Amino acid sequence: MSARGPAGAGPAAIQLSRIMRPDDANIAGNVHGGTILKMIEEAGAIISTRHCNSQSGEHCVAALARVERTDFLSPMCIGEVAHVSAEITYTSKHSVEVQVNVLSENILTGAKRVTNRATLWYVPLSLKNVDKVLEVPPIQYAWKELEEDGKKRYEEQKLERLVTKQRNGDIIFPVFNPEPYTVGYSQSSLIHLVGPSDCTLHGFVHGGVTMKLMDEVAGIVAARHCKTNIVTASVDAINFHEKIKKGCVITISGRMTFTSNKSMEIEVFVDADPFVDEPKERYRAVSAFFTYVSLSKEGKPVPVPQLVVETEDEKRRFEDGKGRYLQTKAKRQVQMQPLTQQ
Amino acid sequence: MSARGPAGAGPAAIQLSRIMRPDDANIAGNVHGGTILKMIEEAGAIISTRHCNSQSGEHCVAALARVERTDFLSPMCIGEVAHVSAEITYTSKHSVEVQVNVLSENILTGAKRVTNRATLWYVPLSLKNVDKVLEVPPIQYAWKELEEDGKKRYEEQKLERLVTKQRNGDIIFPVFNPEPYTVGYSQSSLIHLVGPSDCTLHGFVHGGVTMKLMDEVAGIVAARHCKTNIVTASVDAINFHEKIKKGCVITISGRMTFTSNKSMEIEVFVDADPFVDEPKERYRAVSAFFTYVSLSKEGKPVPVPQLVVETEDEKRRFEDGKGRYLQTKAKRQVQMQPLTQQ
Amino acid sequence: MSARGPAGAGPAAIQLSRIMRPDDANIAGNVHGGTILKMIEEAGAIISTRHCNSQSGEHCVAALARVERTDFLSPMCIGEVAHVSAEITYTSKHSVEVQVNVLSENILTGAKRVTNRATLWYVPLSLKNVDKVLEVPPIQYAWKELEEDGKKRYEEQKLERLVTKQRNGDIIFPVFNPEPYTVGYSQSSLIHLVGPSDCTLHGFVHGGVTMKLMDEVAGIVAARHCKTNIVTASVDAINFHEKIKKGCVITISGRMTFTSNKSMEIEVFVDADPFVDEPKERYRAVSAFFTYVSLSKEGKPVPVPQLVVETEDEKRRFEDGKGRYLQTKAKRQVQMQPLTQQ
Repeated sequence: MSARGPAGAGPAAIQLSRIMRPDDANIAGNVHGGTILKMIEEAGAIISTRHCNSQSGEHCVAALARVERTDFLSPMCIGEVAHVSAEITYTSKHSVEVQVNVLSENILTGAKRVTNRATLWYVPLSLKNVDKVLEVPPIQYAWKELEEDGKKRYEEQKLERLVTKQRNGDIIFPVFNPEPYTVGYSQSSLIHLVGPSDCTLHGFVHGGVTMKLMDEVAGIVAARHCKTNIVTASVDAINFHEKIKKGCVITISGRMTFTSNKSMEIEVFVDADPFVDEPKERYRAVSAFFTYVSLSKEGKPVPVPQLVVETEDEKRRFEDGKGRYLQTKAKRQVQMQPLTQQ
Repeated sequence: MSARGPAGAGPAAIQLSRIMRPDDANIAGNVHGGTILKMIEEAGAIISTRHCNSQSGEHCVAALARVERTDFLSPMCIGEVAHVSAEITYTSKHSVEVQVNVLSENILTGAKRVTNRATLWYVPLSLKNVDKVLEVPPIQYAWKELEEDGKKRYEEQKLERLVTKQRNGDIIFPVFNPEPYTVGYSQSSLIHLVGPSDCTLHGFVHGGVTMKLMDEVAGIVAARHCKTNIVTASVDAINFHEKIKKGCVITISGRMTFTSNKSMEIEVFVDADPFVDEPKERYRAVSAFFTYVSLSKEGKPVPVPQLVVETEDEKRRFEDGKGRYLQTKAKRQVQMQPLTQQ
Repeated sequence: MSARGPAGAGPAAIQLSRIMRPDDANIAGNVHGGTILKMIEEAGAIISTRHCNSQSGEHCVAALARVERTDFLSPMCIGEVAHVSAEITYTSKHSVEVQVNVLSENILTGAKRVTNRATLWYVPLSLKNVDKVLEVPPIQYAWKELEEDGKKRYEEQKLERLVTKQRNGDIIFPVFNPEPYTVGYSQSSLIHLVGPSDCTLHGFVHGGVTMKLMDEVAGIVAARHCKTNIVTASVDAINFHEKIKKGCVITISGRMTFTSNKSMEIEVFVDADPFVDEPKERYRAVSAFFTYVSLSKEGKPVPVPQLVVETEDEKRRFEDGKGRYLQTKAKRQVQMQPLTQQ
C-alpha cells in the first residue's frame, strides 16, 4: 500500500483509522462497543455506496439493512488506534454484503489485536426517491465457491429477517419501586433528537448512530444490574426494519432478559416519533440483543447477580435467552474463544 | 414520576437519560452547569413541540422564550447517569410552561440525588413562517387550583420579561492591564460560528446551546477571578428576546458584578452578528446572571477574593447584585438548602 | 492492500478516512480548512509516535513542532469521503518529517481530487518525563538523494523556526467603534477551555486541535471583513513553541494583515493561561498566517474589499504581508495552480 491517495482502496476495500479519545471510553478506559459499531458501519456505508454507484445510472446511498451477530473479541483502550477495514464479499440483485475487521494498535508498544469481525448487509436507495431500491452491480469472485457461500449466507439472513419482525410489538413498561435484580430494577431508556450530523445524504439516520445509542442504553442496564464496570461482549443480529428521518425523536429502551454465570443479555428497542414533520404514529425502527460481561478492577470477567424473573413473559424471555446462549456456546466449541467464555 | 424507564412518557411527560462523559466536566470531574442546562432545554423543546403539534393544523417548532431562576442543588460527576424528566404544567393561549427535574444516579452504588429543578416557557412558531406564533392546545388539569397557580406564574413572568428588556443596551468594554480582582481582570468573551447541529428544524439556535455557551464564559470569568475549581450554583431568570439564525457569529461576553463571602455573580451577554446572509446590525439576543462558588480540592465551598469595584457603574452593579443575593437568601430561609449556602 | 487489518500500515505509512458531515462545513457546504488540518495532524501524530516507539526503550508520544506552508488546492464537500495518508520521509536525531496527502472522493460519482499536501515535523517526548526529548530511530531511504534532500529541508525549517520566535511579543488590542474595512473592524478572538478529548496521552493539546481553533478564528475575521462565504486558501508555516496543558484556557485571536485583489491574510495568535493548576503567567504558544479567499454564490473567487491600514504598525504588517504574497506568487509560477490564483 502506498501512502499516497486511497491506494488499494479500489471498489472493494477501504480502511478507516482513528485514535480512541477519553470520550470514546467508560471510566475504566475501555472503548464503548457502540463507538466501534459506529466506525464499522461508517466503513460499510462508504464501501457499499461507492460500489453501488460504480456503474453509470441513478445515484444512490447504501442504507444499512442488517448486521450479523458480532463478537467483541478483545477490549480497545483510550490512546490506541482503531483500524477498521471493510471489503465487499457478496452481492445479490438488491443487496451488498460487507465484511469488516477491526484491529487495535498500541502505537507505544506496537502490539496489535483483532477486536471485532462483523458482517453487514446494505441496500442501495435512490437519491431521488428514497423508497426506490436500485440494482447492485455484481462483483467478481476469485473462486466459484466464494459466490456459492455468499448466496447461502444471503438466503439464511433473508429467512431470519422474516422471523424477527414478529418481536416488534413488545413494549417496556415502567415499574415502580422494583426489587433488586428484577427486570424493572435495571431497565432504562433514553431519548435523542436526531440532528443533521446523525444523518446520511438522504436525511435519514446512519445505522451506526443508532447502534451507538443502543449500546449506550444496554450498557446502563448492565451497570445498574451488577454495579461494576461492564463491557460489550457481543451483539446479536440487528435488523433495521424502518428508516428514521432527521428531526425525529427516538426513544431507545433496554431491559435485561437473561443472565448466565458471567454474562447478561439485554434486549433493546428503538422507537421513532416523527412528531413535527408528519404526525405519523410512533413506530418500532430497530430491535436487538446485546450481551455484556462484568469486569473486576483488574479487568477480568466476574460472576454477575442472577436476574430475578417474575411474570410469565419474563420467564419466557429468560428461557429464550438461555436458548440463544446455549446455541452460541455450542457454536463456539468449534470456533475461537471470545470474551464471554474466559 | 419514577426515574426508571419512560414512566408516564405520554403526551405530557418525557425523560432524557445520558451518561456523563469526560468532556462534560471540568478537571475536578464535576459536570459543567451548561451541559445540564442544555439537556434541560432539549427535554423542554421536545415535550412542548410534541404537545403543540398534537392537534391537526399547521406544524410548528416550540422556541424557548424564558427559563426561570434555576438552582444547582448538588454536583453531577463523570460516569453518573443524568435523568432529565419534563412535564407540561400550564398552557396559555400562545405559550407552554414546562417543569423539568434532573436526577443524578450513580449506577455503581445506586445512589440518587436531585440536582436541578427548572421551569421553562416555550412559544410555538409555525414551521412555514417562523414569525407566526400559533395557538397552543390546552392541557387538562387534575385540580382547578393547578390552573390558577399556573396562570399566576404566567402573569408574573410576563411582567418580568418587560423589565429585563431595559438592561440590553449595556456593553462590556475591554480593559488594559487590569489590577487583580477588578472587573476588567476576569472579564472574558468568546465567539462561536453557529453550525447546523446548534439549530432546530427552523434553522435557529436551540436555547440550550446558547445557555451552554453562556455558562462556559461565566465559568472562565469565575475561574480567572479566584484561580480555583469553580462550579455553577444558580442561574437567574433568562429571557430569549431575539432568535439567532444558523450562520451567525455570536459573541458571548461575561463580567463579574458581585461577590459575597463564598459566591460570585457574573453577568453574561449574547450578541448576534448575522453578517453573511443579510447584513443586519449586530443585536443583543440574550442576557443573564450566573452565580458560581469556588471549591477546595476536597470539593468544599471556600471563600472567594472580594471583587474590586472602581467606576460608578461597577459600584451600582455591585449593589444591584447584592440586592439579588439578599433577596435569594431570604427566600431560601423558608425553602431548601442549595449549594451556595453550605 | 488487503482490507484485513492495517495492511501495509508498517512503520512508514498510515491512512485515515472519514465521511464529511454537516458539522464539518460552512453554510455553503465547504468543509472548514481547520477540520482538514486536524485530520492531517492526527495522521502525522499516529505515524510518528508509532515510529519513535519502534525500537525498544523509553516510551514516548510524538508532539507536533512545526507544519510547513500548506495550500488548499481544491474544496472538500459534505458527503464526500476524505482520505488522509501519511508517510515518514526524513528523520533527524530528534525529529521526524511526515508528508501527508489528502484526497477527496465523491462516492456517488467516483470523482477524486487531491485537496491538500502537507509536511509536518514531530519531536518524541518521553511519556515519563514530558520535558525529555528522545532519540528517533533512523529510517531507510530508497536512494541516498532522498536523505540529502530531507537533511536540506531539516536545516531550512530549523533556521526559520528561530526567526519566527521574534514575532511572539505582539498583542492584539481591542478597538472601539472601528471604521469599516480597518483592522479593528474584523479582528476577533475566542477562548476555549482545554478538555480531555483535546489532549494526547501526555495531557497536552493535540496540535491539530489548536490548528482547527485557529482556522475558526481566521475564518470569522475573513467573513467579518468581506461578508461573503469564505474559504481557507493556504496556511503559512506554523511553529509550536510551547506546549498547552489540559485545563488551560486558551485565547485565540486573529487580525487581518494584508489584502490582495482576491485574497486576505490573517495573523492568528494562541495564548495559554494555566490559571488553575499552577499560577504561571499567560504565554504565547503558537502564531501563524492564514490566507482566505472570498467566494460568490456560485463558489467562484471574487474581489475582496481592500484593508484600510492606519497606524505605522499596521502599514508595516501590510508590507510584510505583501512580501509574503509576492514571494508565494513567484514560487507558484514554477509549480502548480492552487485556489488563490484563479
